[in-house]
Amino acid sequence: MKLLKYNHLNVLIISVIVFLFSCQKREQNKMEVTKEITAVINEIERVEPPNWFVGFKDTSLQLLVKEENIGDAIPSISYQGVTIEKVHKARSNNYLFIDLKIDESTEVGEFNIDFTFADSTKKTHTYELKSRDKKSDDFIGFNSSDAIYLITPDRFANGDDSNNINTALKETDIDRSDNYKRHGGDIQGIINHIDYISDLGFTTVWPTPVLLNDMAESSYHGYAITDYYKVDSRFGNLSEYKELAYKLREKDMKLIMDQVANHCGIGHWWMEDLPFGDWLNNQKNYEDNIDNWNNETNIGSNHRRTTNQDIYVSKADLKGNNEGWFTPAMPDLNQRNPFLAKYIIQNSIWWIETLGLGGIRQDTYPYPDKNFMSDWAGAIMHEYPNFSIVGEEWSYNPLIVGYWQRGANNRDGYESNLKSPMDFPMQKAIVEGINEEEEWDKGLIKLYEGLANDFHYASPKDVFVFLDNHDKTRVFTELWEDTSKVKMGLSYMLTLPRIPQIYYGTEILMNDSANPGDHGLIRSDFPGGFKDDAVNAFTGEGLNEYQKDMQSFITKILNYRKDSKAIHDGKTIHFAPFMGTYFLFRTKGDETVVNIINKNIEPITIDLKRFEEVGLEGKTLKNIITGDTFIWGNEIHLSEKGSVLLTTKI
Amino acid sequence: MKLLKYNHLNVLIISVIVFLFSCQKREQNKMEVTKEITAVINEIERVEPPNWFVGFKDTSLQLLVKEENIGDAIPSISYQGVTIEKVHKARSNNYLFIDLKIDESTEVGEFNIDFTFADSTKKTHTYELKSRDKKSDDFIGFNSSDAIYLITPDRFANGDDSNNINTALKETDIDRSDNYKRHGGDIQGIINHIDYISDLGFTTVWPTPVLLNDMAESSYHGYAITDYYKVDSRFGNLSEYKELAYKLREKDMKLIMDQVANHCGIGHWWMEDLPFGDWLNNQKNYEDNIDNWNNETNIGSNHRRTTNQDIYVSKADLKGNNEGWFTPAMPDLNQRNPFLAKYIIQNSIWWIETLGLGGIRQDTYPYPDKNFMSDWAGAIMHEYPNFSIVGEEWSYNPLIVGYWQRGANNRDGYESNLKSPMDFPMQKAIVEGINEEEEWDKGLIKLYEGLANDFHYASPKDVFVFLDNHDKTRVFTELWEDTSKVKMGLSYMLTLPRIPQIYYGTEILMNDSANPGDHGLIRSDFPGGFKDDAVNAFTGEGLNEYQKDMQSFITKILNYRKDSKAIHDGKTIHFAPFMGTYFLFRTKGDETVVNIINKNIEPITIDLKRFEEVGLEGKTLKNIITGDTFIWGNEIHLSEKGSVLLTTKI
Repeated sequence: MKLLKYNHLNVLIISVIVFLFSCQKREQNKMEVTKEITAVINEIERVEPPNWFVGFKDTSLQLLVKEENIGDAIPSISYQGVTIEKVHKARSNNYLFIDLKIDESTEVGEFNIDFTFADSTKKTHTYELKSRDKKSDDFIGFNSSDAIYLITPDRFANGDDSNNINTALKETDIDRSDNYKRHGGDIQGIINHIDYISDLGFTTVWPTPVLLNDMAESSYHGYAITDYYKVDSRFGNLSEYKELAYKLREKDMKLIMDQVANHCGIGHWWMEDLPFGDWLNNQKNYEDNIDNWNNETNIGSNHRRTTNQDIYVSKADLKGNNEGWFTPAMPDLNQRNPFLAKYIIQNSIWWIETLGLGGIRQDTYPYPDKNFMSDWAGAIMHEYPNFSIVGEEWSYNPLIVGYWQRGANNRDGYESNLKSPMDFPMQKAIVEGINEEEEWDKGLIKLYEGLANDFHYASPKDVFVFLDNHDKTRVFTELWEDTSKVKMGLSYMLTLPRIPQIYYGTEILMNDSANPGDHGLIRSDFPGGFKDDAVNAFTGEGLNEYQKDMQSFITKILNYRKDSKAIHDGKTIHFAPFMGTYFLFRTKGDETVVNIINKNIEPITIDLKRFEEVGLEGKTLKNIITGDTFIWGNEIHLSEKGSVLLTTKI
Repeated sequence: MKLLKYNHLNVLIISVIVFLFSCQKREQNKMEVTKEITAVINEIERVEPPNWFVGFKDTSLQLLVKEENIGDAIPSISYQGVTIEKVHKARSNNYLFIDLKIDESTEVGEFNIDFTFADSTKKTHTYELKSRDKKSDDFIGFNSSDAIYLITPDRFANGDDSNNINTALKETDIDRSDNYKRHGGDIQGIINHIDYISDLGFTTVWPTPVLLNDMAESSYHGYAITDYYKVDSRFGNLSEYKELAYKLREKDMKLIMDQVANHCGIGHWWMEDLPFGDWLNNQKNYEDNIDNWNNETNIGSNHRRTTNQDIYVSKADLKGNNEGWFTPAMPDLNQRNPFLAKYIIQNSIWWIETLGLGGIRQDTYPYPDKNFMSDWAGAIMHEYPNFSIVGEEWSYNPLIVGYWQRGANNRDGYESNLKSPMDFPMQKAIVEGINEEEEWDKGLIKLYEGLANDFHYASPKDVFVFLDNHDKTRVFTELWEDTSKVKMGLSYMLTLPRIPQIYYGTEILMNDSANPGDHGLIRSDFPGGFKDDAVNAFTGEGLNEYQKDMQSFITKILNYRKDSKAIHDGKTIHFAPFMGTYFLFRTKGDETVVNIINKNIEPITIDLKRFEEVGLEGKTLKNIITGDTFIWGNEIHLSEKGSVLLTTKI
């Protein structure tokens, strides 16, 4: 992999961009400037976070300052309430880290940071402290009342043709014929279709990362971030990102930001001049081989994630997981370096505050140092007690999933501070259980026993469930392109005490059946999102009847779910599968929701006496999909394989 | 199934047997009788426990008294230190339950219990309080320093031809040609071969139940007990059972008794005249249909054992598991009846004390009421703090296994008091992992990740591990009759921080390959245990070279293991499988044991640098099987597929 070489042209471009960026931010944040600054001065290459806010519980702020030979300079600030507590030099003389204290009473506004160099020359950077739009407690994260729409932005909709190409970046082409190249989807594309998403019944949008990925290849997926404070121009800009968040909020919807603390992209700006010798894990190996860096490196992660829990773990294995690089193109950040740790925590808080986020999805959760992850999530939850974070631990073992959840009774005392782990075990149970023939220990019993594992979780309803995502074979493919099976899976998942997520296109049966598991194919273009698409799923034009039916199915369930207290927070009771059927009940107050999975191809009549304890006798229930009503009596007749979803709310 | 009808002949036989039994006990326990009894009087059909002991922490004792119209009688006792606290009538007038208090200072001896009936007639029963052979703390249960030999007594060795047939019992025949009939093995057969078992290196023997199973069929397996205080005459008598325990103790070995609290056999003596209306679960159904009792009953257990943990469980499912009958021939005992609860607890304590047991194996652990099981185990562990109980929960889910172990951090607050759950998850991981081709998530990684789950257990080294047992396909069959794979499994299991159990005949590659999973076949006759056997595994006569090799392999490992502090209690460290190999280290003090599993058919050389942290460089290690020595240097050469077991103790 070829590296971006440090050169002055780049610095200039970056400086100009940062300058414009700064001006733009001032434009957008209509706040009173409490101190007169004659002009915004920016003689410093990079100061991060690019601004900060007044009114956090944590009154400290650590600035990363990057500028040639800044290590020789002495910074000073003259602004009431802002104190320089400590200045740290780095290994590279081109960095300074400045610890600030920002009194609670500090007024918002701009101030200059003056740097005096050894030769008495000076440089100045204008820094802004903004006011906060809302109180910490008002950042309400996603929860079990939400339904999340996961989007791969490059593949969803191209809302702005003008940003498709940025020749200053390494991957310049758009090539829709290649599923591993960029296709042109962007933030504006999501903004344009918020109504579609909302009408489907989703309340939350999770786009995979949209920050700069200036990488030679596969930059479309976004997980190789090369600037933690910059939107990738091919996706749009900060203004559009803010607009997305704002427009979602206007519809009472939430935005989840997909963040990556474990690694950056090898094209990250700091890779040319790392601040410390321990900024990365295996940094020496990298620096020794920087000119010949390639896939032959021996420092890849062993991906043995159980090393985080294993009481018999070897140091070698633990190091292999936590310090190995995710890929040779993704340098592994060393969060045990306190400056990097602080940098990542502040970055997350900056984005929550700047976008008014409704949640963070954290990538590759078990790869960084787990104590850092606890500190990171802890710092965020301390600042925003009602916020939500979901962490990706790709494990089918509920022991491991439970370990990561806040409030776990872990024997090693580990407290993650993480509200929502991901429910890979349930995803697997649902897919396997629906596909398998019914046997004593196969089929629907896997759903029943999978859910029974909830006794282990600190908070089952905060666990994040899904049938597929951007890394997994699409559920329509997994379930053998059988729409009745997809309906079983969806209606079950959407009735569970969980936070459910659906991947874009599931509603129109998008699939990767041609090559199951192929990432590029999983992340195919959403029809209608791109100019001249023959099919338009947004309008329904060109969809076949099965696709329209699934869109309608999801729309009906999700729109019912929006106001269903029984699903959000009700009591759960379920009955062991019997005769190819499985009944799950959710109840809150007068509302009971009944989800029935029926695997029988031939019509079947089920005696309802077994469910007596639920207390539905004589009640009228409505089928949420068909609208038909049904009086709960002695038996129920199930005429076809699939899902039946009933409610007492009629 | 035909029932034993209540008749006077039976009562007479039982009375005579009880009488002889009582005399015999007096013979054997050479203790001073502190009170003069002119003669042992036994005018009462049944008093249970048949005797008791002085010096328990719990000074209460509840006697079950069975005699025609005993409900009308008033009992009295005149013996210093023994007080009748309360007398309870039952539903049936033929029972009385008498609560006694036995002062700590009570002297051992016999005394009469006099019953005065309404018509002033009297009956008397002589009861004995014995002294205890050893202190409570000295009952040391099996632990990780032990290796357990599991035996199906009917199939191991016939040591006494005279007891083969008892025509007073329902299943009279011996038929060695039918694997579901009795074959004649007995307690004497085990006694005769203690040296063989000991020489193999086992320290503990677990025979499946030997109490009376007076059942019409399949009585050989012993799990349908029809008298909780009586040895099945076809297995021997109490005297032989005591002799077995005694002879094992003489060799520093332990005896585990296999007990069944969940159910009795339908031929149990009390089935004709149940003391209370709630002595059984689903008792009404049984009593209503007693004359036509058959397999069509609808009261079978649903066997959904996760109902014990499931926070969403329906009452119907929970009841279905806990109150359903295991089979129609095994009435489900209702341990919520306090008299039955007390009966079972006292029965266990009586056997511990009478035999000087080294442990109890409790059958079908998750089927009885779990609170009773906690009380039961709690009462035993309170009386014998160093004792051991292993409970059978057949679950491949470590969450469930962990739930049952003493000290689990269960969210529902459940404390089982159970030292040792069974490690079905590890059994499955070992078999699957050894059989599978090596892939990212298949093969040896299943052993590695299975062991990594130990972080969840309150005490991993008290978990009871095995490769097969009397209910499971034999490991030689499971591992495709590949002796190198059996060696991998055995050497791994025997090096783990666990209590290992091996099923009789594994050492000579017994198998059920002709019909895998067939219970009768799994429990085949041990060659040499029966007259005129062509092959004799005890002497080695007629064994093939593979069988002899496996006998030798097990003998070497187990005899090493006997004194290996590293295996019993050492630190464990293991390394993620790599290149078809998996290294596990156990260390205590100067002793390090290294277990290597190697799946490579071609010779392979492994770089040892990765294991640097174990600190073996330059040390000489001995191969426990071959005796060869090896200096731990830069690499190890593994010439063939299989197991390598090394130790620094040379």
